Amino acid sequence: MSEDAVSPGPEIRRGLWHLMRWRRDVRRFRTDPVEAAVLDRCLSAFALAPSVGLSEPWRLIRVQSPEARAAVITNFETCNAEALTRYQGAQAGLYASLKLAGLREAPEQFAVFCDDATGKGAGLGAGTMPEARAYSVVGAITLFWLALRAEGLGLGWVSILEPARLACDLAVPESWRFIGYLCVGIPETEAETPELERAGWERRAPALIMETR
Amino acid sequence: MSEDAVSPGPEIRRGLWHLMRWRRDVRRFRTDPVEAAVLDRCLSAFALAPSVGLSEPWRLIRVQSPEARAAVITNFETCNAEALTRYQGAQAGLYASLKLAGLREAPEQFAVFCDDATGKGAGLGAGTMPEARAYSVVGAITLFWLALRAEGLGLGWVSILEPARLACDLAVPESWRFIGYLCVGIPETEAETPELERAGWERRAPALIMETR
Repeated sequence: MSEDAVSPGPEIRRGLWHLMRWRRDVRRFRTDPVEAAVLDRCLSAFALAPSVGLSEPWRLIRVQSPEARAAVITNFETCNAEALTRYQGAQAGLYASLKLAGLREAPEQFAVFCDDATGKGAGLGAGTMPEARAYSVVGAITLFWLALRAEGLGLGWVSILEPARLACDLAVPESWRFIGYLCVGIPETEAETPELERAGWERRAPALIMETR
Repeated sequence: MSEDAVSPGPEIRRGLWHLMRWRRDVRRFRTDPVEAAVLDRCLSAFALAPSVGLSEPWRLIRVQSPEARAAVITNFETCNAEALTRYQGAQAGLYASLKLAGLREAPEQFAVFCDDATGKGAGLGAGTMPEARAYSVVGAITLFWLALRAEGLGLGWVSILEPARLACDLAVPESWRFIGYLCVGIPETEAETPELERAGWERRAPALIMETR
């Protein structure tokens, strides 16, 4: 491949920024199925993700059975009710009004884990920071998120779950650490502003960057 | 904005896949400076990243002083020598031959932290999984990585560091958790294959995806 083909041009830059600007954490999905070929293409973004020592520790479970989905909903609702008790007054009212997951509508759902015991990569880069493996999984999810967005699809990351309960319900190996539960489907709406900002929960700010003295 | 402008077209998709395919973990940098406006643009990708409860817990320190850079190099060399003792025979020889960081050449360097004590987002989504804040920082780094790639720049993520030592050397607040040390600059070469794969350390494989029973 020639140098020209490797160097990204201005259209590629503009396209990336478009995707980043319109990528949302989606909680409102249409129930239409996702085309299998499109989903497979997006999933193949995992194999392009960086990973510490090339350990590729990501493990995905596509959650389809009604039993498994019901267990996830129960897990979420228990944790969310508990979370609500930590707020008071108007903030509690606002929290209760938020839609924080699309577990009942999203046609595709994935529980994503990190295999902390993988021998792949022979531990390179994870000696002082074993959490670098989990971080590799998060990077891969981020690429998957953009790949979905590039197909007009949305992803919602659910973290209001008890990891031990989920691991048990899905019967995953002991060494798998739960990273995130992903709802995938066609978003009901498009927006340039996060739903939590539109709902008045919190606003985005510029990143904090300091210099060394 | 019209629906057409929001929906990503095939060129945007192709562009994203180009960036993902050619993104590398770079350890060999040219020492040429990075244009300030380009770096600032790439850094602004942080503000577009998803974060749990809109907590935006990323904190960056741009490491420029010779003293701070020397401390990072000492930290890395100590950890890397220790890591080498965990390998034997041919694997030890191979490990010793790898170039695992561009700390002496990369013109721009950032230590990235997660503020676990931030009040932003009021804890939403992080009750059962406080580590979701660290994961938000990793997602933001991943967007920064692609934004750099789209400018023909490279990023190398250094994890062979003692987090407590680094936090002390950079005098960061107690609540800041170290996520990763990023070297940034113009890569010496472009490649579609990770350097660890070219060096014979490990090979990439398709992602493991299982179905629920």
